[in-house]
Amino acid sequence: MLMDQNLVDKAEALIPELRTTTAAPQRLIEVIADEEAFQGWRTQTVQTIGEWTEQSYGKGDSFVLDFGDHLVGYVSLSLKPVGSPPDAPLKLKLTFGEMPCEIAEPFSSYNGWLSSSWLQEELLFVDVLPAEIKLPRRYCFRYMKIDVLDTSVKYKIAFENVSCEAVSSGDPSRVEPLPESLPEHIREMDRIAIKTLQDCMQTVFEDGPKRDRRLWIGDLRLQAQANYLTFRNYDLVRRCLYLFAGMRLEDGTVAACVFEKPKAHADDTRLYDYALFFAACLHDYYEASRDRETAEELWPIAYEQLRIGLRRLDDRGVVADDSTWWCFTDWHSELNKQAPGQAVLLYCLKRGAELAGSLGRTEEQSFLAGQIGQVSSATLRYLWDEERGFFVSGADKQISWASQVWMALAEVLPPDRNAALMDRLLAEPPSIGMTTPYMYHHFVEALFLVGRKDEAVARMNAYWGEMIEDGADTFWELYNPADKKLSPYGSNLVNSYCHAWSCTPTYFIRKYLM
Amino acid sequence: MLMDQNLVDKAEALIPELRTTTAAPQRLIEVIADEEAFQGWRTQTVQTIGEWTEQSYGKGDSFVLDFGDHLVGYVSLSLKPVGSPPDAPLKLKLTFGEMPCEIAEPFSSYNGWLSSSWLQEELLFVDVLPAEIKLPRRYCFRYMKIDVLDTSVKYKIAFENVSCEAVSSGDPSRVEPLPESLPEHIREMDRIAIKTLQDCMQTVFEDGPKRDRRLWIGDLRLQAQANYLTFRNYDLVRRCLYLFAGMRLEDGTVAACVFEKPKAHADDTRLYDYALFFAACLHDYYEASRDRETAEELWPIAYEQLRIGLRRLDDRGVVADDSTWWCFTDWHSELNKQAPGQAVLLYCLKRGAELAGSLGRTEEQSFLAGQIGQVSSATLRYLWDEERGFFVSGADKQISWASQVWMALAEVLPPDRNAALMDRLLAEPPSIGMTTPYMYHHFVEALFLVGRKDEAVARMNAYWGEMIEDGADTFWELYNPADKKLSPYGSNLVNSYCHAWSCTPTYFIRKYLM
Repeated sequence: MLMDQNLVDKAEALIPELRTTTAAPQRLIEVIADEEAFQGWRTQTVQTIGEWTEQSYGKGDSFVLDFGDHLVGYVSLSLKPVGSPPDAPLKLKLTFGEMPCEIAEPFSSYNGWLSSSWLQEELLFVDVLPAEIKLPRRYCFRYMKIDVLDTSVKYKIAFENVSCEAVSSGDPSRVEPLPESLPEHIREMDRIAIKTLQDCMQTVFEDGPKRDRRLWIGDLRLQAQANYLTFRNYDLVRRCLYLFAGMRLEDGTVAACVFEKPKAHADDTRLYDYALFFAACLHDYYEASRDRETAEELWPIAYEQLRIGLRRLDDRGVVADDSTWWCFTDWHSELNKQAPGQAVLLYCLKRGAELAGSLGRTEEQSFLAGQIGQVSSATLRYLWDEERGFFVSGADKQISWASQVWMALAEVLPPDRNAALMDRLLAEPPSIGMTTPYMYHHFVEALFLVGRKDEAVARMNAYWGEMIEDGADTFWELYNPADKKLSPYGSNLVNSYCHAWSCTPTYFIRKYLM
Repeated sequence: MLMDQNLVDKAEALIPELRTTTAAPQRLIEVIADEEAFQGWRTQTVQTIGEWTEQSYGKGDSFVLDFGDHLVGYVSLSLKPVGSPPDAPLKLKLTFGEMPCEIAEPFSSYNGWLSSSWLQEELLFVDVLPAEIKLPRRYCFRYMKIDVLDTSVKYKIAFENVSCEAVSSGDPSRVEPLPESLPEHIREMDRIAIKTLQDCMQTVFEDGPKRDRRLWIGDLRLQAQANYLTFRNYDLVRRCLYLFAGMRLEDGTVAACVFEKPKAHADDTRLYDYALFFAACLHDYYEASRDRETAEELWPIAYEQLRIGLRRLDDRGVVADDSTWWCFTDWHSELNKQAPGQAVLLYCLKRGAELAGSLGRTEEQSFLAGQIGQVSSATLRYLWDEERGFFVSGADKQISWASQVWMALAEVLPPDRNAALMDRLLAEPPSIGMTTPYMYHHFVEALFLVGRKDEAVARMNAYWGEMIEDGADTFWELYNPADKKLSPYGSNLVNSYCHAWSCTPTYFIRKYLM
């Protein structure tokens, strides 16, 4: 790892104080199998909070608290024994769920390929009662199941209180209210998107507060764009930029993600598109904040990423597609990444050139302008299939949604042909589709870019609007309206149901609909 | 509860600082089924500690550490990831066992009637690695199993260190070494008895540091007697006496046990014999410590216990035997408690009268002397069966070991006839036998009392000596050489394998064999 301690120190000096709010459970529920409901589960109220606190529980009893909204925070329990003095520890099992499936489907059934350690549960022994317990780990949940595994024959346990101290570095008072004139469902979509962003805003922009709880640059770029139009926490973006800049892979490439603890360190994951996005992120940050000092300090790293990205071009000027690289683009095992990677390179070169101009780095600006020209030409010459009217990718000349979307965003074609490309994409949908909200974001962004605003809004409604219909309190990592149990990990249980890259409806609404 | 805050405050001012020593694992073992071994399990070394620290573990791996001796204390783990930066929490299951059965028999198989919360296990999620973890709960164990439930595909986990900070309020440097002239097996029995006492000596004399972790007066009496000849921690006995004196049941009866946390409080369990033992405990404490101030302050409570005990006499002068009382005596469902209860009353009246004399309470001394005479006469008249040569108990005139032993200890008969009673007991053993080391202690004590020293030593060897043969690191709560899987709780797993009332071989050795 290339470590620039000066930059890392600047990042660490920007660790925000988190804002806290206390949330209480709203009702007791049960989760019921229902083929009609999302993922086959719906909830039903079984008891009020008042009834619950009057009750006491013995061995084998259990209940499910519904906090009424998605939360990220620290849980406290007030426990009171009922009966004789407790003569044995209390043994509880706690299960936290963002979604009803996590409460209904036993974690022991999990057989996915991501670590089962992400499933939020605890086995708790309480040696001394009554007790005020503050659990040390952070949970991400709306539902909390408590199984009383054992008390003793001499006592039962009552729950005087269970609460959650929710945390975020997003300050809702900085978010401007939407005009009342916007339709109710758009305002609701904005609210949920902002809540999604808020719950991901911690001491960095996390990708998902349940899983992975890390700063990924692909997520950061979208979160920052939404943040500039909502919470406007510029320092949090700045902290994240310094973290990426301060810890790079051996050849200077910005890592795909970084960890904060026990001390800041970079992951060993290298993604072609994510490294390039460092330049786009810095461009966007400067545009939003006008913080010239940071932009100037980090410019060399952004420029370096573009130079490293350019090194991947073959002698035709096209990104080499072989087994030596990873380019994220979307969760799709058959998707060829050459054309999307080429488009991301171009997209980022353009933002880099613009930032170089703003900072008066004329020599680098002009170098980048030259590269933009060459890469654009090569793209049109080698990746554009005039006959089919689509960009192709890889040796098999794959035509995918991702390639067209990213080429539209890279503005390789002039505006009218760019719009025609998107119209053609809608009219003649390729079979290699989109799977993540992250990819879906770029699709909607491309529609807005080429002036297809109605279609963009319709697609937002069909995607994030449908998530709302399906019960989203925050927007999800993964969603396919046509296959609602989809998980690339082998199980619904480990999907993140509050995920950074899904927070962008507020960005669209506030950028394009106001 | 009758609360005398002044007495409780005195008890709390005597909370001892615990001595700590650090223990390290000695080897890695596996537990193997073996019909010949105690409880069907034996251990076998599989790896050295040096080999273990070089190793790394992934999902599904597990190992068992053997610390080489019984420990009561706090466990720390040093964890180091191996591979890529950890991208998911580490999920561990920890299982602690005093005995191999606790490692070999899954806790999920437990079906006893005591709370399963006593079984020592933890589910541990470690969000940040590397990590130094100090587990907050106290464990009681020799063996520690670690199951690595999950890491992630990107990393494994290595254990740089696992250690235990063992705690006790017993200071081994105060224990006088035994003369070298005593046989090796007696010295070994003494060592294990002292270790048992030491591990039970915490901020009170606990009955068992694994289970129940409470101060019971029946255990206290024996622990204190052993303590006066070993650790000589008089203040700890004093603390316990003040706890019992300061918190009594509504009619003034000393509770059978008390709890220390969250603040000192008495249990609602009332045992006829245990309440009377308060007077015996105070007598013994004064004899050992000559602390007249404490004896004088607590005398009225001791005297009150004797008065309450006397109230149970019917108009014949015999302890009423009906469904309204509990008298512990031994874990034996068929044992009638009338004669043992009568004997304990007499035993305690005698110690009370002696203490009253020492303290110059002549009026109370003379009252007690009168009662001793009356109770003795009634005992001989109504409970002694001249024809059978045994004391009988209850409506069915049950003849049990417990009745004879306690009558011998109460010295109802003159010395020669008392010795003859014990001889007859050995020659014509009643079918209602003894089940606990607690009862067995009183049996051996009675043999020493009546001058049958060789038989007493033989019985010690046959009981505690056999426990050593069966692998005891500390002496056990329950042991029946004829039925080694015995548990009154429905499972071996919840038996306490370091138990106060089993620590008395050191008392016998140091009182009678030196």
